[in-house]
Amino acid sequence: MEKVGFFDLLEDKLILVDEKMMSRSDGYHPDLTAALEHLMASGGKRIRPIITLLIGSMLGANEGNLISLSASIELLHTATLVHDDLIDGALLRRGNPTLNSHWTPAATVLTGDYIFAQAALLAAEIGSTEAMSLFAQTLSIIVNGEITQLFGRNEFSSIDDYFNRIYEKTGSLFALSAKAAALISPVDKKSIPPAEEFGREIGKAFQIVDDVLDFTGDQTRVGKPIGHDLRQGVLTLPALYYREKNPDDDVLQDCLDGTAGDAAVEDLLNRIKDSGVIQQAMVEAKACIKKAIKALDEFPDCNDKNSLVELAEYIVDRDI
Amino acid sequence: MEKVGFFDLLEDKLILVDEKMMSRSDGYHPDLTAALEHLMASGGKRIRPIITLLIGSMLGANEGNLISLSASIELLHTATLVHDDLIDGALLRRGNPTLNSHWTPAATVLTGDYIFAQAALLAAEIGSTEAMSLFAQTLSIIVNGEITQLFGRNEFSSIDDYFNRIYEKTGSLFALSAKAAALISPVDKKSIPPAEEFGREIGKAFQIVDDVLDFTGDQTRVGKPIGHDLRQGVLTLPALYYREKNPDDDVLQDCLDGTAGDAAVEDLLNRIKDSGVIQQAMVEAKACIKKAIKALDEFPDCNDKNSLVELAEYIVDRDI
Repeated sequence: MEKVGFFDLLEDKLILVDEKMMSRSDGYHPDLTAALEHLMASGGKRIRPIITLLIGSMLGANEGNLISLSASIELLHTATLVHDDLIDGALLRRGNPTLNSHWTPAATVLTGDYIFAQAALLAAEIGSTEAMSLFAQTLSIIVNGEITQLFGRNEFSSIDDYFNRIYEKTGSLFALSAKAAALISPVDKKSIPPAEEFGREIGKAFQIVDDVLDFTGDQTRVGKPIGHDLRQGVLTLPALYYREKNPDDDVLQDCLDGTAGDAAVEDLLNRIKDSGVIQQAMVEAKACIKKAIKALDEFPDCNDKNSLVELAEYIVDRDI
Repeated sequence: MEKVGFFDLLEDKLILVDEKMMSRSDGYHPDLTAALEHLMASGGKRIRPIITLLIGSMLGANEGNLISLSASIELLHTATLVHDDLIDGALLRRGNPTLNSHWTPAATVLTGDYIFAQAALLAAEIGSTEAMSLFAQTLSIIVNGEITQLFGRNEFSSIDDYFNRIYEKTGSLFALSAKAAALISPVDKKSIPPAEEFGREIGKAFQIVDDVLDFTGDQTRVGKPIGHDLRQGVLTLPALYYREKNPDDDVLQDCLDGTAGDAAVEDLLNRIKDSGVIQQAMVEAKACIKKAIKALDEFPDCNDKNSLVELAEYIVDRDI
């Protein structure tokens, strides 16, 4: 990521975003502060704040509000991850121990709730009820997606369901990052839909790439074991394409049933990787990126626009 | 409760509040709708909406906004209960099975998150960023209180800590119910502090009475086993007063350590009940009520004000 130009441009602002996020632990229980520090230090690429900062700068939003909005969205994202890790029983995220791995479930639930509250407080600071409402809507969409995934675990789902799921899980928050930035900018309301489309499409591409990396990635770089989704009974795009081509491969069903042994899963992972479906999934991811870049046509030419194109292209190039 | 006049006055509006709360499940996963219906049917006295409706009507707030605000606050309360029951491993609340008793922890965490989101959406509908901000602040206070209680479980705490804890746990949301109603009313800002004080003080009284009922209540009416807090290693006001008078009663320490047997806890409960500390705790609850009623002096005389006095007096009279 360090080589990408837009990151250098934003480095100072991203430090302000991190400071804003950390400032939310002042005056609360010391274990909450420690938890938030741990989560911040665990990294993450801050892609959502980058989207907000780039779109908002391009459209002339107030910088203080953009920092608050970015911090708020990243905190919302962090809160959903904390609860997600608890739900998955995940012990690692981005290669770092999750809160869940060394805290009780009770403390983890409450830490997530606390971070939700801090996200809402920051969003309220901006003083836009429309942005607040968008915020709450997005949280509903994300949680609804998680519930659907939870109750649909261990069942075959369609490719349409998959695209819906990645919108709910990831696209919706990327869309918020872009749309809310446009919303708090001094521009015509017609700038809002293309901003939302840009965010949504790169979010979907981001999730497809994430799902591909679960098949092809380097475990130490991805930060979790390869084939994690399959082992959890969750079929993502490559597995769904593979199933279309190989409806009789029983190991897929065994994965859903949780009865596939490690060796059988390893073999299935190799069959999936060799079947051409990784490339097929990447075609979809690239189509989303193309749509995102097309949406930028609605905006005036400027440096920030070039950075947005770079960002969109980076999404499908990272670590593949 | 049925005999109390203010309830009859508000019956129609409370139905609207319930309808507003239920309307938040449209279009989402059917299990979420079912969960919300289950929670609504499990009752609760809707005391927080009653406070909002009475104060808001007295101060001339828009009725639609008051219904949204009431529903929003009750949903926020419901979400914290859902996570609370998960944390406590509680199987019953108000005598009804908790979500936690028949759902997985994962589904329970997500249902709570979803209800938080719906509460925030309703709050945003009112269009007051000050109310939104108050909302988020209150959630932070509640969660901070729960974290403090969680990490302080099985430790002796002071009576000051207790009063702080009941403000965080209960007083803060009662304060929000009253303060936010004043905030969205077409009145001078100087009406806001007395409204907040009224809510905070009756909330504290409500929690003291709840804690007293854990010693004196009828298990079938309270809806959970008597002595629950003590068995969980949580010392509330009667136990703290008892400890002041009987510093050498080792069974208290055994309760904190989780090593007290059922018979020993039963005996301790009887010693506590016979020691006069229940009456001592009720004196504190009544002092809060007196303070709450005093705060009402800042408001003009009207019928709603009489209902607020009735409500405050009801808080300390229920089921004791």
